[in-house]
Amino acid sequence: MPSNRRFHLAKRPEGVPDHDTFDLREVDTPDPGPGEALVRTLYLSVDPYMRDRMRAGESYADAWEVGDPLRGGVVAEVVDSNGAGLSEGQTVVGNLPWAEYATASGDSLTPVDTGGLPVSTALGVLGMPGRTGYFGTREVAQPKADDWMVVSGAAGAVGSVVGQLGELQGANVVGIAGSDEKVEWLTEELGFTAGINYKTEDVGARLDEVADGVDVYFDNVGGPVTDAVWGRLNVDARVAVCGQIALYNDEELPTGPRKLAKLIETRASVEGLLVQDFAPRFREATEHLAGLVAGGDLQYRETVTDGLEHAPEAFLGLFEGENIGKQVVKVAESDA
Amino acid sequence: MPSNRRFHLAKRPEGVPDHDTFDLREVDTPDPGPGEALVRTLYLSVDPYMRDRMRAGESYADAWEVGDPLRGGVVAEVVDSNGAGLSEGQTVVGNLPWAEYATASGDSLTPVDTGGLPVSTALGVLGMPGRTGYFGTREVAQPKADDWMVVSGAAGAVGSVVGQLGELQGANVVGIAGSDEKVEWLTEELGFTAGINYKTEDVGARLDEVADGVDVYFDNVGGPVTDAVWGRLNVDARVAVCGQIALYNDEELPTGPRKLAKLIETRASVEGLLVQDFAPRFREATEHLAGLVAGGDLQYRETVTDGLEHAPEAFLGLFEGENIGKQVVKVAESDA
Repeated sequence: MPSNRRFHLAKRPEGVPDHDTFDLREVDTPDPGPGEALVRTLYLSVDPYMRDRMRAGESYADAWEVGDPLRGGVVAEVVDSNGAGLSEGQTVVGNLPWAEYATASGDSLTPVDTGGLPVSTALGVLGMPGRTGYFGTREVAQPKADDWMVVSGAAGAVGSVVGQLGELQGANVVGIAGSDEKVEWLTEELGFTAGINYKTEDVGARLDEVADGVDVYFDNVGGPVTDAVWGRLNVDARVAVCGQIALYNDEELPTGPRKLAKLIETRASVEGLLVQDFAPRFREATEHLAGLVAGGDLQYRETVTDGLEHAPEAFLGLFEGENIGKQVVKVAESDA
Repeated sequence: MPSNRRFHLAKRPEGVPDHDTFDLREVDTPDPGPGEALVRTLYLSVDPYMRDRMRAGESYADAWEVGDPLRGGVVAEVVDSNGAGLSEGQTVVGNLPWAEYATASGDSLTPVDTGGLPVSTALGVLGMPGRTGYFGTREVAQPKADDWMVVSGAAGAVGSVVGQLGELQGANVVGIAGSDEKVEWLTEELGFTAGINYKTEDVGARLDEVADGVDVYFDNVGGPVTDAVWGRLNVDARVAVCGQIALYNDEELPTGPRKLAKLIETRASVEGLLVQDFAPRFREATEHLAGLVAGGDLQYRETVTDGLEHAPEAFLGLFEGENIGKQVVKVAESDA
């Protein structure tokens, strides 16, 4: 059997995770049981929500126990199908450990068909982040033509999809991101109406300059960026709460301005979003997004970190905003 | 002409208003112009939203200028119709100054028909607070049978209507109020499933005892009470934000726990509510509420303060929770 390495939760982080959070173990390559496939990881996904799984107690994602393997979206290649209904060399996606090799039941693995795009897109624009953007825009945020739509975390895997879908609906999309390079990508390449670098600009003041209030807000970050947007909500505004990455490393719920009174003034509605609620419609989302990419109407970027051993840096970089578009970790080349 | 007294905004309050906020002036009784009626105030309404009108700057209610008369819902008797299309002695309701006498155009005054109930109910259960409860429950909070529904400010003019409408829908309603007398009224008289005295009990701990989470939250108060309820929201909960009286005397937006992450976990939706949005349907609301009262399915209480000169105390008492049910000020007996 080949050698295998796997990341485990070494201890629960207090505040910002660091390298003590992660334990890379040399482990046996597992034998697939009947109906299980042995797969070899090509790409693994690091996502902000994983921070919440490191925390004890309830969240929308079940907590990992200390010592558990870290898990997430993985694109892998089938090494041994062993009755799992897959063929060797086939590319699949599933929820798998951060490891070089893993086993999983056949029905927990989905064959990847990215229609000529790199297989890593099954973790990004054609995967969970893309679907989150699709359902979040279509079912929750619901931008209409001429709406002023603000997207936070706009250069991330979800935000970049959301903003482009908003522009396709005819909304005027303002993207908030954390570097001039990101803002330039949004406005020059993706067709956003405007961009704001929240690290160097006053978000509220810039919004007052570029937008006529906020009809739709798609929030990936929370915290002070959201506070600034909140003050500009228009009557009957809609807010989709998709992520709050600015808060995930806090040990206690941080405080901020009390926001509910603004909802009376505006009769705005605010709704939380979790993509798993739309699981029966995932195929619809992927097909729609793939069609847009093929037609040139939806662009994406990926930030690729090379080597399983660097997965912690890739994960921690999310909280520093180091990624543009989808952050993935490349673990191995395809043998196929 | 009879003597007349009228309250004016003496100065903008800083923090909690006090008697320096109000200026009771001896003024001329106005002459009604063509198409205007001269009316004599019987009851005037004091409402929490008026605090916001004393503040400079934008809110959902336009700010009063210093020196302006204070205004609000008033039940009055027509003294002189002067072509306003009303008859002398007729009882009307309108948005009028806190004064003994006032003039108003005929089309801004609505004849009062309380179907045998005291005319003061046109300011309470059959007036703005009742309609707020009706539309807020029916169109925003939307309790269903067996839902756990929490109402803050439950013994107030709006909350007491909301809770009873919730129980009529088959929800299990938990009312939060500020005295044992109020809680007893809710549970013993109005049929609430349970009540919590937030001044003497731990709201979160009591909610854990009496309810199975929170499916619907109708919020009249905001602040720490709402923080406690928020932590118990169930998946797909609905929150109607109707008032935030706990915050209205703050000069700056106070801080509190950041609440949006909970919406991701629960996919809850939160929506602000302003009764004026439902103006074309006010008659529907009043007729529905009057029918429920007549049938014994909706109870109400009024706290009556006697004398125009005591209107400031009545208003300030709202923030101390001194009223049970609708707080009105009785200015004069009907001559009719």
